[in-house]
Formats: sequence, C-alpha cells, structure tokens
Amino acid sequence: MNLYQRDLICTQDWEVEELEAVLDLAAKMKRDRFSPQWTSILQHKTFLMFFYNPSVRTRQSFECAATELGGHAQFLEPKAMRLKTATTAGETVEDAAQVMSRYAHGLGIRILEDKVPYYGAGEELIREYAQWCSIPVISKAHDKYHPCQGLADAMGWAEWFGKGPGYPANPMVLRGKKLLVTWGHGALARSWSSVQEALLIGSRFGMDVSLAHPEGYDLDPQVVQWTQENCAANGQTFTETTDVRAGYESAHVVYSRHWMSPQAYRDGEFHKQEEIDKALKYPQWICDAEKMALTDNAIFTHPMPVDRGHEVTDEVASGPRSCIYDVAENRLHVQKAIMALTMAEA
Amino acid sequence: MNLYQRDLICTQDWEVEELEAVLDLAAKMKRDRFSPQWTSILQHKTFLMFFYNPSVRTRQSFECAATELGGHAQFLEPKAMRLKTATTAGETVEDAAQVMSRYAHGLGIRILEDKVPYYGAGEELIREYAQWCSIPVISKAHDKYHPCQGLADAMGWAEWFGKGPGYPANPMVLRGKKLLVTWGHGALARSWSSVQEALLIGSRFGMDVSLAHPEGYDLDPQVVQWTQENCAANGQTFTETTDVRAGYESAHVVYSRHWMSPQAYRDGEFHKQEEIDKALKYPQWICDAEKMALTDNAIFTHPMPVDRGHEVTDEVASGPRSCIYDVAENRLHVQKAIMALTMAEA
Amino acid sequence: MNLYQRDLICTQDWEVEELEAVLDLAAKMKRDRFSPQWTSILQHKTFLMFFYNPSVRTRQSFECAATELGGHAQFLEPKAMRLKTATTAGETVEDAAQVMSRYAHGLGIRILEDKVPYYGAGEELIREYAQWCSIPVISKAHDKYHPCQGLADAMGWAEWFGKGPGYPANPMVLRGKKLLVTWGHGALARSWSSVQEALLIGSRFGMDVSLAHPEGYDLDPQVVQWTQENCAANGQTFTETTDVRAGYESAHVVYSRHWMSPQAYRDGEFHKQEEIDKALKYPQWICDAEKMALTDNAIFTHPMPVDRGHEVTDEVASGPRSCIYDVAENRLHVQKAIMALTMAEA
Repeated sequence: MNLYQRDLICTQDWEVEELEAVLDLAAKMKRDRFSPQWTSILQHKTFLMFFYNPSVRTRQSFECAATELGGHAQFLEPKAMRLKTATTAGETVEDAAQVMSRYAHGLGIRILEDKVPYYGAGEELIREYAQWCSIPVISKAHDKYHPCQGLADAMGWAEWFGKGPGYPANPMVLRGKKLLVTWGHGALARSWSSVQEALLIGSRFGMDVSLAHPEGYDLDPQVVQWTQENCAANGQTFTETTDVRAGYESAHVVYSRHWMSPQAYRDGEFHKQEEIDKALKYPQWICDAEKMALTDNAIFTHPMPVDRGHEVTDEVASGPRSCIYDVAENRLHVQKAIMALTMAEA
Repeated sequence: MNLYQRDLICTQDWEVEELEAVLDLAAKMKRDRFSPQWTSILQHKTFLMFFYNPSVRTRQSFECAATELGGHAQFLEPKAMRLKTATTAGETVEDAAQVMSRYAHGLGIRILEDKVPYYGAGEELIREYAQWCSIPVISKAHDKYHPCQGLADAMGWAEWFGKGPGYPANPMVLRGKKLLVTWGHGALARSWSSVQEALLIGSRFGMDVSLAHPEGYDLDPQVVQWTQENCAANGQTFTETTDVRAGYESAHVVYSRHWMSPQAYRDGEFHKQEEIDKALKYPQWICDAEKMALTDNAIFTHPMPVDRGHEVTDEVASGPRSCIYDVAENRLHVQKAIMALTMAEA
Repeated sequence: MNLYQRDLICTQDWEVEELEAVLDLAAKMKRDRFSPQWTSILQHKTFLMFFYNPSVRTRQSFECAATELGGHAQFLEPKAMRLKTATTAGETVEDAAQVMSRYAHGLGIRILEDKVPYYGAGEELIREYAQWCSIPVISKAHDKYHPCQGLADAMGWAEWFGKGPGYPANPMVLRGKKLLVTWGHGALARSWSSVQEALLIGSRFGMDVSLAHPEGYDLDPQVVQWTQENCAANGQTFTETTDVRAGYESAHVVYSRHWMSPQAYRDGEFHKQEEIDKALKYPQWICDAEKMALTDNAIFTHPMPVDRGHEVTDEVASGPRSCIYDVAENRLHVQKAIMALTMAEA
C-alpha cells in the first residue's frame, strides 16, 4: 500500500485498508507524540492551508500537526483568488495549482457554507485543484465531506469501545455497533460535511447506521445510497427515520448535530437567515439524558463546536459518556498520519 | 521553585523570587541568544496566540520567542469565537479551552480597549480560559495587566542602573530608585494595562513610586492599594499627585504614557472618541527636557508605541537617556524565559 | 564580495557580479533543494513579512523560502501602522524599524497600487525602513521595483536558453538575446514594478531590449534611461515603440503584461476604476500565436498571475514555449539565495 501523493477528499474514495492504515499510524503517533520517528517527516517542508471559510479548530489542529512533523503550515485566506464562478478577472485554478505544487508538499482546502453558491461547488473546486496539483490535496471540510473529521470520529469511538478513552484501538471494535446520526435544532445553518462523512465512515467500518431528522432535512441522496451499500456490504442495516426518539433505541454512538435543509442553496445563493429561522422550530430535536436512556449506554459524539442547549444538553455534552474532547484531540493525530502518508515518501 | 504549567496574568500573582527567576533566565538568554541550551526547549511544540486586539510588537516578539525556542507560535484572531457577553450562538470557553489544551503547550491572550464591554471583562475572560485550560495561559496585555511588559520594563531599567544598557542586571539594583509613572496627553484612548503593571512590578522590586495624572484620570483603586502595600512592605513610599511637575523631582525612571479615564467604559460601551477629545485638553502633560531636568538624571521609559509630540518630546524619546528600544527588545527575552519556565518540563 | 546586511530594493542598486552570485546560489539551491548545506542557514531566525498589499504568490514563496532555510517568516499586515502620509497618531518608522531590528534578521515589504497615494511613495517608505533598520530590507514588490521577480525572470530565461527548463544556467547565456516587454490589455490596473525590474535586469545581463505599449502608457523615464544606459554599456540596443507588432520581430523572450498609465495617481489618489475602463480599449494588445510567429522562436514569460484572454491567449500561456511556471518556481530559489546571502553571516 502506497499513499504517497494521494488526495483525500472523501473517505469513500479510499479503500478500507487505507483508512485503517491512517488510524493505525495515528494511534502510534498519539501513543508517542514527539518521538523522533515522526518529528522529521515534514522537516523544512510546507503544507498550504487554504481557508475560504475560517475555522478555529481545523486551523489549530492542522498547524500543530505540521509543526509536530517538523514542517510548517502556511495559513492562507484566498480573498484575492476568485472562484471560477466569479465574473471578475483572476487567476485560474490551473495556474495557481501548478505554481503551488512547485513550492509546497501538500494543500489543504476548506470551503463550505456561504463561500459556495450551490451544494457541490466546493467539491468541484477541490477536485479541480486536485486535477492540476502534483501535490496531495486534502479536504479540511467542504460542502460535501470532511474526511479528517470522519477519521477522528472513528478513532475516538474505537478508543471508547476498545480499552477506553486514551487507549488506541483498531476500528474493528466498531463492527456491529449501532451509530445514530441525528439532526439537532438551533440558530445555525451548518454544512452537511461532517455528518455525511460520519455516515460513510461508520458504515465502512461495519457499523449499523440510523439516520434521524425532521421532514425536510434530507441529506445528499448519493451519500445515503453509499451508506446503505456500505452497510449491506458489511451485513449491517441502515435505517432512516423522522421520529425524534426511534433512532436512539439500542444505539452505541449518538451523534447529534444541526445541519441545513436542502433548501439552503437556491438561485445561486446561501439562504442562511431563512435556515436559522427554520431550525429553531424543532425544540424537541435535542439530545438529552431522557433520550440517551433509550440507548445501549451510548457514548455522545460531536465534531464541535457544540451548540449546547440546542443540539445537546450540557448534562450529556459534559457527561461521563461524552467523547467530544477525545474526538477533537484525534483530529491532530489523524491529520499527522494523513500528512505523513501522503506528503512524505516512505 | 517550579513554574511549569503556571499561568501568568499579573505579576502580582507571582512571588518576587519567581519574577526574579524569569529575569535571571531572560538575562542568560539575552547574553547567548541562540545557544543550544534554549533552541530545543519548545521543539515541535505550539504556543497559541489569541489576538482579540491586534498588536504589531506583541505579535512580533511572541512569535520570534517561540521560533527561537525551536517551537511555533500560531497567530489566531478569534473573530469566530464569541465572548460570553455576546447573545449569539457560539462555543463556550469551557469547550474551546479543553480542546486547545489537547493541541498546544501554551496559550497567550490579548484583549483590551474596544474588545471589552467594561473594565475587567478582559481579565474575567483570561481567568475563565485559565480555569479550563490544562496548559499555561499568559496575558499578552488585557484591560487590567500586562505582565510581560512589566517584566521587560524591570529588566531594562535594571540594565541601565547596573553596568549599563546591554549588560544583564539583577532587579536588586532597582531597590530605592524612584519610579515616576505619569499620564501623557494625546489623541488616544490607551488601556491601563501597561502602567498598572509598571506600578506593581516597580513596587515589588523595592522602588519608590510616584503616580501623577490630571484630575479625573485615576487608575484602578485595587492596583493603587497593592502598589502602596508593595512599597510599604519594602520600606518605600508611594505618592500620588495631580501636579504635572511634582513627581519628576529626584526621579530615576520616568514613565510617561497616556491612559484613558475611568469614564471610558459606560453602559457596556467603550467611548473612544470622547476619550480622544478629552485627552487633548492637557498639553502641559508631556515629558520634555525641562521636566527631565528636575529628575536625578532619570532614564525615560515607555512600552511603545510612543506617541511622540504628545506623551514625550522627540528630544527625550530619542535622547541619550531613553531606554525604550532596550525595553522593547527585552520583551523577546522575557517572553522566551516565561515560555521556557511555564511550557516545558524542567 | 559580502552581501551580509545588504538591502535589496532594486537590482539596479547592486553590481552585476552580486546579482550573478544570487543566481549562482539559487541554481545550487534548486539542484539540491533540501541539502543540509542550506537547511540551517536561518535556523531559529525570523524574517518579517510586511504586506501592505496582499499577495498569494509572494507570500507563499517567501514563507516557503524561510522554512526551507530552517527559519520562520512572520506574516504581518500592518493595518495598525500608519504611513507617514496619514494624519492620525501612530508610530514612526524610526521607532518601528529599530525595534524590529532587535527581534528579526530580515524585513520584507510589499507596498503598491491602492496602498500608496502617489507613484514613488512605496519606494520612499521602503527606503525609510532601510535607513532605520540594522537588518536587511528586501522589497517584495513596491510601486517602482520588484527585484526578486526580476532575478527569478532572469534565472528562468537563462535556464531555457541554456540546457533547457530545469537545468540551472549562467545568466551569461542571455547576452545578445532580445527581450520584448509589451503592454497587455485587460480589466486591471497593475503596478509598474515587475515590468520595470524586467527592463533593468534584462539590460544589465546584456540583452537587447524592446519596449512596446500604446500611447499614453509610458513607464518611469528614469527606468527607461537606466535601461538605455545598461544596453549601451553592453553594446546592445534599446528601442521603444507604440506599434503592437514591431517589437515581436526577432524577439527571444516575450513579456506581455498589463500596466497602469501615468495618470493612475492624481491628487493623492489611485484612480483604479478609470484605469480599468481605459485598459479594455486596446483589445489588439494581446500576445497571441500570430504575433509569436514573428519572433525568433521566443519563449513567453510573465510574473503571474496571468490575466488569460487579455494579456495573452491560453494557447501561448499554456504552450510549449511558456516558461511561466519555471519563473514562478524560481521565486522560491532566488529568495532563498537572497535571504541566505543578506541575512546570515558567511
């Protein structure tokens, strides 16, 4: 297996064995964080971070990851670089990508929400960069997927179902566990990237998957279909429900998070305020202790930032079965592993 | 003495011996700036810099400090992270601080002036981060204090009263010297942090302290009380005056700088323009050669940026007794020492 | 020859032998990019990057350069530092420069277009920083010059006329080759810095130079005079024409790029929209295959970002004789060489 120069835009693009290789290396890196085995991997080398959208956690974890591998992550906000949908003069992705490939050893891109004119535009831009770049392109969350979050999720859940938090574990322990991905209300208009990646990676690693949301909050049909197929291939079931409680029954992992409706993008615009207004109308869609009691002693997971009081109660988010900080920490280790495998020759 | 994992929010929180340990290490680091003794202290490790307010000098000196210790300082402008006074949805400090503690080895925060709704709000935010962080939290200037500036001030003054500029000196040489902290006019609305820290650290190191300002420009009564107590504990005197000349008599160190009035924050807002208008009405409050002639051959000090022509004349600021560039340089050495002592295990 | 501590504001300020030394080292650094010969040159040291104007490519190449030399480039947007033309209170360049010299080992400045009130104001600011800094000051493009681009241009052209792209070559191979610098149309108001630097460095290295533009698009008469003098000193000719085709005849290097007119700055303001409107009126001023057919099999060069469809056709810009990506790559190697020669003691 050779992942050198591979792009990572969605975990569904990679083989399960390749994803396991990332988690295996991430576990080793977590166990012995500053070992000389890793600290020269990117020495004197640059990872370019393009943030079309700002992000505190993704920025911190990627920049720390590059530093811990001995390299440097450049923080870039491409205000001056037009999307190809814009009508003004500007540099083409063809030109930008080819020059960046001469300077750097990897490129991460984050683009979603108000920075895209329609669902899928961020994915198109990332894949256009990947087409022209001779260096690996890594999604740092875009409108469709968030592969680094998905890998950190799986790593965190596996730790909790293995020897416990802090103990690296093989994602094999997830096989047969039930994952509930449920919509949460709130004054937000969050992207589909994290939840869709969770559905995909959970089902790839053999989890039984349940998806719950109010009517009108369907996710991308392609992702739902892939999730069904992944479940079927592993002999597991996939269910979708609009009942706020049904999915909790016998769940082992509860993932409660807000996401925007399919109506968020219309006429080339992002209708943020409309989504925010709409999302407050379902106060029963909150993960609380009463619903968690229906589960099989499930852990609570969330990619953060958590909208406490809307997506989940404080009692659950700060409770003894919350794995949110472990998952957040794993962003660092997973990203170090991805960078090491794709940006450095073995 | 073990300073590992200690927060530094105000020098008054630390023992005099602990402050001396910082200055002792800073002097060694200044003498042999790139010695291998120091250049691996933060190797592969990250210092997070939160700039709620921008700052050129604090940014430069902290980022250089991390680089010189072999580590990396991440520059973050937390636009996306709400203060807890805001009414909009956002991540709690509890969550943000706990995740940052998983990634980084130290956190610096700068918050003052227009970024706080009332005097003390910045202090509260920093202390809330410190409560939830398991990594040390360092103030990079907030509405109340500026401990790194205070330590750089003391280091610079001690150099000048020791063997001269450039020669590291023990702060013991400051004992019995008279420090004048005097208000300066100008089209500004500067925070209290630097001058309050100067009063506190000068009095801790046994200086005789005089505070001068026009009526209506009182500082925090708690800081004035602590300064009095520090002076008393060292057998020194503290005086406060509204006479523009009185404080200069027999002074050894003159610190002339503008600060806002206690009326600057009212009704949850920062009345910047009102302060600027008011501060121009006292043109006699400028440090000039005529007033410096009243002193005991005093040095002129200022935390910079200097508002030349308002706080001080060019003649004094660029004169042979100005220690401003030495003090500014010492920010680097002091911050390296603080980071080394608090962020790395001995 | 000792370039330690030398400023680089325009290649015309340096001796030809000094420029050759840069290109010689740059070629070695390109051939063996991560050799331990170079990777400790700036270890633990800081290069300050002041971006009054944003730039993607200059930022990427300088920050990568510092990283590859083992150092760190600090990205600074001096919003808070006033130009001396401003009427508001602020820190003087005298103070800022002297403090930065205590922290860092080099300072790069970019200032042009809408950030200067008149042509030459950027040059004045850079030279004022250079006067007060005790560390080298490097132009990262200002209203008059762009020395790093000029050196990257010459390096790229020499490679193509030597053993071919990718093979380092002595700039001696440029002697007697004909350089055409021609204006291109487009919805832009680009600075004179890159084209003026190209005229100067091309003529310094013994090229025959032709300058072509519509009436009313004259460049700085001082630069034109220097170019004439450089050509004459090398026994070459300099010609200027307003004919869109004449310059192409027997050219070896074609440099087609938009630049603003001398009317762009008037009354202390930058009339950007007026320039943009005017620049679209000359659609015949585009470098295309038909004009390239008039040359002596010329290569096409451009400092990027390319305004495809205006300055040059896709066919030429992406054609087999386009050296644009090689020139762009050379920014990295040239800047590493400049930093190594000026910022580190031999």
